[in-house]
Amino acid sequence: MTARALDGIVVLDLSQVYNGPYCTLLMAQLGAEIVKIEPFRGEPVRWRVVGEQQTAAFGLLNGNKESLRLDLKDPRGKELFLRLVARADVVVENFAPGTLQRLGLGYEVLAEANEKIILASGRGYGAQTPQAGQRAMDLTIQAVSGVMGSTGYPDQPPMKAGAALADFFGGTHLFGGIMAALYQRTATGRGQHVEVAMQDAVIPSLTSNIAGYLDSGGTLPERTGNRHGGLAVAPYNVYPAADGWVAILCMTNGHWQSLCGLMDRDDLADDPSFATPAARVAQIDKLDDFVAGWAGGRPRDDMVANLQQAGVPCAPVLTLSDVMSGPMVGPDSMIRPVKSADGQVSYVFGSPLHLTGSEPVPSTTAPALGEHSDSVLTRTLGLTGAELATLRAENVI
Amino acid sequence: MTARALDGIVVLDLSQVYNGPYCTLLMAQLGAEIVKIEPFRGEPVRWRVVGEQQTAAFGLLNGNKESLRLDLKDPRGKELFLRLVARADVVVENFAPGTLQRLGLGYEVLAEANEKIILASGRGYGAQTPQAGQRAMDLTIQAVSGVMGSTGYPDQPPMKAGAALADFFGGTHLFGGIMAALYQRTATGRGQHVEVAMQDAVIPSLTSNIAGYLDSGGTLPERTGNRHGGLAVAPYNVYPAADGWVAILCMTNGHWQSLCGLMDRDDLADDPSFATPAARVAQIDKLDDFVAGWAGGRPRDDMVANLQQAGVPCAPVLTLSDVMSGPMVGPDSMIRPVKSADGQVSYVFGSPLHLTGSEPVPSTTAPALGEHSDSVLTRTLGLTGAELATLRAENVI
Repeated sequence: MTARALDGIVVLDLSQVYNGPYCTLLMAQLGAEIVKIEPFRGEPVRWRVVGEQQTAAFGLLNGNKESLRLDLKDPRGKELFLRLVARADVVVENFAPGTLQRLGLGYEVLAEANEKIILASGRGYGAQTPQAGQRAMDLTIQAVSGVMGSTGYPDQPPMKAGAALADFFGGTHLFGGIMAALYQRTATGRGQHVEVAMQDAVIPSLTSNIAGYLDSGGTLPERTGNRHGGLAVAPYNVYPAADGWVAILCMTNGHWQSLCGLMDRDDLADDPSFATPAARVAQIDKLDDFVAGWAGGRPRDDMVANLQQAGVPCAPVLTLSDVMSGPMVGPDSMIRPVKSADGQVSYVFGSPLHLTGSEPVPSTTAPALGEHSDSVLTRTLGLTGAELATLRAENVI
Repeated sequence: MTARALDGIVVLDLSQVYNGPYCTLLMAQLGAEIVKIEPFRGEPVRWRVVGEQQTAAFGLLNGNKESLRLDLKDPRGKELFLRLVARADVVVENFAPGTLQRLGLGYEVLAEANEKIILASGRGYGAQTPQAGQRAMDLTIQAVSGVMGSTGYPDQPPMKAGAALADFFGGTHLFGGIMAALYQRTATGRGQHVEVAMQDAVIPSLTSNIAGYLDSGGTLPERTGNRHGGLAVAPYNVYPAADGWVAILCMTNGHWQSLCGLMDRDDLADDPSFATPAARVAQIDKLDDFVAGWAGGRPRDDMVANLQQAGVPCAPVLTLSDVMSGPMVGPDSMIRPVKSADGQVSYVFGSPLHLTGSEPVPSTTAPALGEHSDSVLTRTLGLTGAELATLRAENVI
């Protein structure tokens, strides 16, 4: 008998693209049963075709889920959904604001069907903003949150982070909020509505930048390239190697002393004008020149090995291709090759959550659209073959 | 009587810098009691001084917490800590790997003191990597995870995201993992050890990039500036306005038709060679030129208003200074001005988590180092004034 944190938890997953689907993927990997309820065309990432094929993005985020195709705009579809809600624990959605209400499926309606239900809504803009009712996407949230303004070189245009951090901060917070609501339900016996806006969820990740703004009275450069976001630490940068790039930082005086030793620069180590973090920050250009000059001729991996041996925080800057041929790809790692029934290998994400008391869930590939419509409705609501045939003929499922 | 999700939950917070402290901040704002246990010098962000003052970063992340100064290397400090563990629910730490074991306070020791205890450990590198035992920081994780490789222009060096996404993805996942463990404990009566590595936690945010790599067989440019990370959507970019920048994207054919209408380019709207997402991606340079040419002369906010009215996803690119003078700053927003006892205003983060069944916690400023040492030890362990005086005289607290 396996034991998992979310054994017995049933999730009706109306979510789409990245934000909600990542939230339910985390739940799936803790043992929850995820019924992904999709409109007739499937959710938007299913449509996203590159060249001739569906993008791999759908597969990465939808392993360990079942797919139920269901038309929520049809009254019979809506009725089936509410019967499922009566037997479920959590509903997750990240529709445009107001969509669930327009379907007649707002929180009050769900709570009437099941007072224990937890509704989790991924939003774009914060409730306190004039844009609260608007639809948002990762790019637009990166734009309004200050992430773009804080990324890139000071003398060049703002730059988005290559990572879709708005979507994924939104989804990860939503997951945590659902877990907290499940815990609270064990005391109250009641569900509740959990909401997380991406715009709110990215703000704390700008701590260095916001602190830099507050500490300097708004006089710091808006973006600082690869330097510390609040210019509070130096050296802290990405330096050229002979064959790539290396990130190096000195958080403490000890790190600085070790780096000077490695660079064979006792004169700098002994120089009182570099003896404190604040003093080093004040001479950041000079320090970056010293380190870049030292690093420039050296092979990347040798330099990293030497820095690590000396106890200086550092890392090689890896390309995506390096990552895809390294230990992040593997059966027990974050990017997992899984064979489907037809023998094709596709890639699904693992979970960053390691709980000693919750056994890992073997990864399965993402479902085909509607693959589990019959089995879910039979298992959960006891529908007969004839009933399923009628619903299918009339385009409800 | 207020009701909050984490009423009655006691957290011993050994964590430092951003990752762990953000995790416990989320718990504090759901009603948990957070005892921040700090070494004699205080945690590292307390030391980070910019100019003459402590950085605002410490204040942003440590509201609604108590500070207990405690020397865990002293046998009496360790004994006090284990007595606190016996009365607590969660211990959070993000020390360098092995530190807790060296202190004689590994999970087994804590579980012996209290079988219900949940130990949560924020790590740097994934357990499956050769770097698993090494200390990591946000910059180094951005380097090895592919975030830097995926950020910036293709013909320029790799660029870190301005946001400290490794630290905060780590902390947010850790929070969710603790909540799941608390929920599981209601069934099992037992705690467990929760671990999250930043390196694992950032990987899913690269979904577009990883999918682009897989879909293209690794032939896509490693970084794509402000274009879609997997080059799967176009137009999708940041375009120059007369007085700033605007992010615009067309996820659907409908968005594209609307944008063409707004640009007064019926010829493009009708052109079959732009009729599908894949066709548009294939001519991405041409499309970006059209949109940039149209956008270039227009005032930012007018352009955004017109695009929004036409239903085209878009947003102005805000500077940090725009953000700091907008609705993200306010008493019920994410960046909250709070007056301390001495009348000084400092800023603390609010929570992105909105739970209708868990009342918001009024924000308080971060504690002074050791501010609550006496009250915590008296309240929790019943220590007397004389005992406290001895411990203080002998540098244990």
